[in-house]
Amino acid sequence: MAGNTIGQIFRLTTFGESHGSAIGGVIDGCPPDIRLDEKFIADEMSLRSPGKGAFSSKRKEDDKVEFISGVFEGKTTGTPLAFIIKNSDQAPSDYDDLKDLLRPSHADFSFLKKFGIYDHRGGGRASARETAVRVAAGAISKLILLTNNISVHAFTSKIGKIDLKDGFIVDTADINNDPLHCPDPTTSLKMQKLLEKIQKEGDSIGGIVSCFIKNCPSGLGEPVFDKLQAELAKAMLSIPAAKGFEYGDGFAVAEMTGSEHNDTYESLKGKISFATNHAGGILGGISTGEDIFFSVAFKPVSSISKEQRTVTFKGKETTISVKGRHDVCVVPRAVAVVEAMAAIVLTDHLLRLKTIK
Amino acid sequence: MAGNTIGQIFRLTTFGESHGSAIGGVIDGCPPDIRLDEKFIADEMSLRSPGKGAFSSKRKEDDKVEFISGVFEGKTTGTPLAFIIKNSDQAPSDYDDLKDLLRPSHADFSFLKKFGIYDHRGGGRASARETAVRVAAGAISKLILLTNNISVHAFTSKIGKIDLKDGFIVDTADINNDPLHCPDPTTSLKMQKLLEKIQKEGDSIGGIVSCFIKNCPSGLGEPVFDKLQAELAKAMLSIPAAKGFEYGDGFAVAEMTGSEHNDTYESLKGKISFATNHAGGILGGISTGEDIFFSVAFKPVSSISKEQRTVTFKGKETTISVKGRHDVCVVPRAVAVVEAMAAIVLTDHLLRLKTIK
Amino acid sequence: MAGNTIGQIFRLTTFGESHGSAIGGVIDGCPPDIRLDEKFIADEMSLRSPGKGAFSSKRKEDDKVEFISGVFEGKTTGTPLAFIIKNSDQAPSDYDDLKDLLRPSHADFSFLKKFGIYDHRGGGRASARETAVRVAAGAISKLILLTNNISVHAFTSKIGKIDLKDGFIVDTADINNDPLHCPDPTTSLKMQKLLEKIQKEGDSIGGIVSCFIKNCPSGLGEPVFDKLQAELAKAMLSIPAAKGFEYGDGFAVAEMTGSEHNDTYESLKGKISFATNHAGGILGGISTGEDIFFSVAFKPVSSISKEQRTVTFKGKETTISVKGRHDVCVVPRAVAVVEAMAAIVLTDHLLRLKTIK
Amino acid sequence: MAGNTIGQIFRLTTFGESHGSAIGGVIDGCPPDIRLDEKFIADEMSLRSPGKGAFSSKRKEDDKVEFISGVFEGKTTGTPLAFIIKNSDQAPSDYDDLKDLLRPSHADFSFLKKFGIYDHRGGGRASARETAVRVAAGAISKLILLTNNISVHAFTSKIGKIDLKDGFIVDTADINNDPLHCPDPTTSLKMQKLLEKIQKEGDSIGGIVSCFIKNCPSGLGEPVFDKLQAELAKAMLSIPAAKGFEYGDGFAVAEMTGSEHNDTYESLKGKISFATNHAGGILGGISTGEDIFFSVAFKPVSSISKEQRTVTFKGKETTISVKGRHDVCVVPRAVAVVEAMAAIVLTDHLLRLKTIK
Repeated sequence: MAGNTIGQIFRLTTFGESHGSAIGGVIDGCPPDIRLDEKFIADEMSLRSPGKGAFSSKRKEDDKVEFISGVFEGKTTGTPLAFIIKNSDQAPSDYDDLKDLLRPSHADFSFLKKFGIYDHRGGGRASARETAVRVAAGAISKLILLTNNISVHAFTSKIGKIDLKDGFIVDTADINNDPLHCPDPTTSLKMQKLLEKIQKEGDSIGGIVSCFIKNCPSGLGEPVFDKLQAELAKAMLSIPAAKGFEYGDGFAVAEMTGSEHNDTYESLKGKISFATNHAGGILGGISTGEDIFFSVAFKPVSSISKEQRTVTFKGKETTISVKGRHDVCVVPRAVAVVEAMAAIVLTDHLLRLKTIK
Repeated sequence: MAGNTIGQIFRLTTFGESHGSAIGGVIDGCPPDIRLDEKFIADEMSLRSPGKGAFSSKRKEDDKVEFISGVFEGKTTGTPLAFIIKNSDQAPSDYDDLKDLLRPSHADFSFLKKFGIYDHRGGGRASARETAVRVAAGAISKLILLTNNISVHAFTSKIGKIDLKDGFIVDTADINNDPLHCPDPTTSLKMQKLLEKIQKEGDSIGGIVSCFIKNCPSGLGEPVFDKLQAELAKAMLSIPAAKGFEYGDGFAVAEMTGSEHNDTYESLKGKISFATNHAGGILGGISTGEDIFFSVAFKPVSSISKEQRTVTFKGKETTISVKGRHDVCVVPRAVAVVEAMAAIVLTDHLLRLKTIK
Repeated sequence: MAGNTIGQIFRLTTFGESHGSAIGGVIDGCPPDIRLDEKFIADEMSLRSPGKGAFSSKRKEDDKVEFISGVFEGKTTGTPLAFIIKNSDQAPSDYDDLKDLLRPSHADFSFLKKFGIYDHRGGGRASARETAVRVAAGAISKLILLTNNISVHAFTSKIGKIDLKDGFIVDTADINNDPLHCPDPTTSLKMQKLLEKIQKEGDSIGGIVSCFIKNCPSGLGEPVFDKLQAELAKAMLSIPAAKGFEYGDGFAVAEMTGSEHNDTYESLKGKISFATNHAGGILGGISTGEDIFFSVAFKPVSSISKEQRTVTFKGKETTISVKGRHDVCVVPRAVAVVEAMAAIVLTDHLLRLKTIK
Repeated sequence: MAGNTIGQIFRLTTFGESHGSAIGGVIDGCPPDIRLDEKFIADEMSLRSPGKGAFSSKRKEDDKVEFISGVFEGKTTGTPLAFIIKNSDQAPSDYDDLKDLLRPSHADFSFLKKFGIYDHRGGGRASARETAVRVAAGAISKLILLTNNISVHAFTSKIGKIDLKDGFIVDTADINNDPLHCPDPTTSLKMQKLLEKIQKEGDSIGGIVSCFIKNCPSGLGEPVFDKLQAELAKAMLSIPAAKGFEYGDGFAVAEMTGSEHNDTYESLKGKISFATNHAGGILGGISTGEDIFFSVAFKPVSSISKEQRTVTFKGKETTISVKGRHDVCVVPRAVAVVEAMAAIVLTDHLLRLKTIK
């Protein structure tokens, strides 16, 4: 029960360290006869790839998904889909200077306490590199969701103090055209200027990714512990650097009254609909058929070149300046990971729903 | 995989509807030789009980936990602990007036869409009554945690716009003395006045429960999908009415820089410690040994006597006024549920940790 | 992971000791809208009940299945089906004489080694009483299978050296009319005489239960670890006193050649069929659509009045004569348990199959 | 829940087809700090390898286990151990002649019925090649068991009508020296002659693998559904071609009385021991500390060159003669697979036991 698997029917198990030969995953429970569109998968991978924007890690990751099993003549067979993504641009020597130092806000300390053994080269399983496997599995999930007309759209809604105005109507076409995956060009420009400034200071900054799901059928999610929002929350908080999750009106509900927050029902020619969607598309843990909407907060990247106080593994006080190829802000790349995790959760629940029909 | 079980080693399965004869649970994987302190369990149950404060449901729930199995001479045997809590004060007739109406923000609609069959009497599995079983299981978890000196403390930190000041130092003794489980008497009085006002208006209001965990050892949580914060997030979002979860600095990280947020290390006589705890006691998904801190947002209670527009199950527009015995604000009672869910997650991970040692 | 749950989609968790107030179970994942035929369930329970035949325990077990949750107006709702069976005829004093003695071939020793605590009164979870819950859950499974026209038929095929002739054609109507659930009256009479003799000697005897499944659709079972025969084998070996499992030609295959054992294919008007069914209805772990056939060996009942050597828990040598109300042979009552476990496994796989369609 | 994972704490997920680029596995939950002895693993792999004996498949499988993750400086890190075994000697053209034919006793038919898609080249997941991954994972399990002084010894006990005499005392050193892994050289010679004869006839033959486990501590296995024998039975019946499992006195118990079968207790200077071990080392599903003993029956290899009647996928009657590189008898190579599966089950339960201590 070591926690490298997610999902009940559509089950993803991941493996690999950032500085080994490859990372990868196994999807068990993928239905047969799904066409694996290689271009689609490659495009999804490139959304998460570093080395594209001015503010992201200069590490080059080709991130080609190589399937080892479960595919026959371009289609899934119903047997385990195993795939690897080679680590083409390993530079473990980058980490040599740091190998005796505890990096503030990194997982070195807690991994060492837990396992008593720690591979200092790049963070091992705690590296953001691990999320490439999630995006690959998310791409496969999306292919399944698309056959059900369900689509998942994440975007950058806040970086530092700069955010999308409340009630901004997102045009999905605008998201992927923007270097920060922010759907409003004006806001994006302000964010880009902020990132330039932070980068010059040798610092990093946090932000928020928001996500909505269109055409989700009613009935997804289970009544008690596996409520759809609970599963999404777990999936999102499992992403490195995520610090918070909210759906529907989120934390703002604390200040709302029932008469403000309740979504009343309407009827048009006998067809029942919701007047509003404060609920965020889920009631009692089960999707209603309305759009699902949620947000995830990400902390500033831990690796900064600005000098910080720290200690060696042996407990000697010193300072550290992390010089590697690091992002200024994780949010633009996290957009792809949020979409992937949402797609994985939805696919699993779509298949779970079949068991009671 | 219908979602009524939580935990991997310490596994709780719950059952029961609010208007059946009883609700209950089975805990499989409870270690043997734990003394079940009946008074402790009863005290925990009373924290969640309605009918005590002026603002909570007038429903009377004795909530006595009756063990059916797994106990011998007052101690656990290592076999399944099954228990029931009788529904002593059923009043299904309360619901007769509503039986044809969709209650706004309730789970009627989504349950009906999913299962095609729905017991209108009180919400079934979606009823808050279900959380009594969580508190019972949480009490047993706490008995295990206490033998490891770990304690869990939740409290009311916000109702409406009234909240505890940032940085307020919580004295755990003050939490349970307060009718709202708010550790600051001055803030609590303001909250009580707000609740009186909202109650008179036939409305309800939201709020926030915060929680910290003391003496949590390092090493709890798993690297990738079962990160400790991910497991806590799922557990919290599985509580009825929860709309958001954040830990450490939470959503505020969006506006922070790395140099502000990173917790630097210090060394006192060779012993490594953290200068700050922005992380909230978890790095890389694994507890560091520092206090764990998180918050959960709860929406306003859906059942309000104020008139709302709605439709019948058949799609006829009408109005509804929910007159039953309902809380004005779920937060004071949710405090016990948040503690219980945190205790269940921690106990499970405490046992999971044993498998690698 | 304490092992009191079986199934992935249709999940049964059981609890309870033979000498507590009740035993019971929770079924999570039961599809909604299944009519729970109470008479059918009661009839199934009576097949396992002791106190009917001359050779079975004189313990009186009413074994009424009382549903606590998951049922509304006689039909399942899709939420957890919890039920209890009261222990109406507890006689823990029966066990007082034995409380310091290790009973040969019982689980006293291994439970004590594992848990360090042991309730001597009747065997706790190791008691055959636990199987009543399996039969109740099996009855519910059968109601689901019957809506798919699948039926499960177990019978007594051997007691001591007396067995059904190879190739005996079983008429299912004959099974339940016979006190030993043996479909051949002549063989049953011989078995009854043997049991009388063994009973007079204060001894017990072993035997074999065989089972076939009719109208099982093709496609049940999963390719690698969850092969249908593997799941059946686990389910059968989990029954107290079971010592072996074989399916199709079973252990006899050791002496067979491929040309004898292979089932060749035939075609009638383009419809493919099997000329024989040595395979027992399963190929590559997946049902073929032919009848499934398997057998389970049961050891002689451990509790015998004949004097045996043993030791006290403290290690003092002595003798034991178990005088309680015990069966001479477990096989006639095990027939119902074998059917129940087969039905539970099939139902789970029937629902699992839905996830890939 | 597609069934390609086994184990709860020590979890093996396997993937790969016989005619893809590689097969492999991921072990999640392997404890950290286990030294991976490469020579030991290679030796284990060679025990299963074809191409060694005169009677086994001429397919050449190097079967080198390549680790992708979870290892640092030769030791496990506690993160997922992923490994692949390349398919160096693929010859899919061997199967071209057969691609339209249903091969009797193979899984072609049931896979096609289940998934609606089928890779004819070599059996896919149903190929015996899949068991190489089990042996690799078994080798890692054995390294963990050895640190606890537990050892697993399987051997050929029967081929056709030729078997080891009852009560033959197995010297473990003799097992691996023999080409058929039969510990008695005289019996092995008779078996070899039989295999020569069967091979000449273009036929195949079945047999039995037996296995004992030495120094297994008491306490492994769980009371109800996850009894140790149930878990072993599932693991064994998941091996391709396995048709039966028995432990202790196995099917022979059907003819035994309680006074014959019960293992009485003795005491030597206050230390309790068993006079006999008819139980096979397990009581109530939990290991007693005595040797565990069980046997597994394997059917004759399905692929035979002797002509058989069959049909095409389209239902046309024809004949088939399978000419590929196939074993005459699977038993000698299955010895390694039985050991591996037993080791995997024991390791999982060894770790499970830690959660209650």
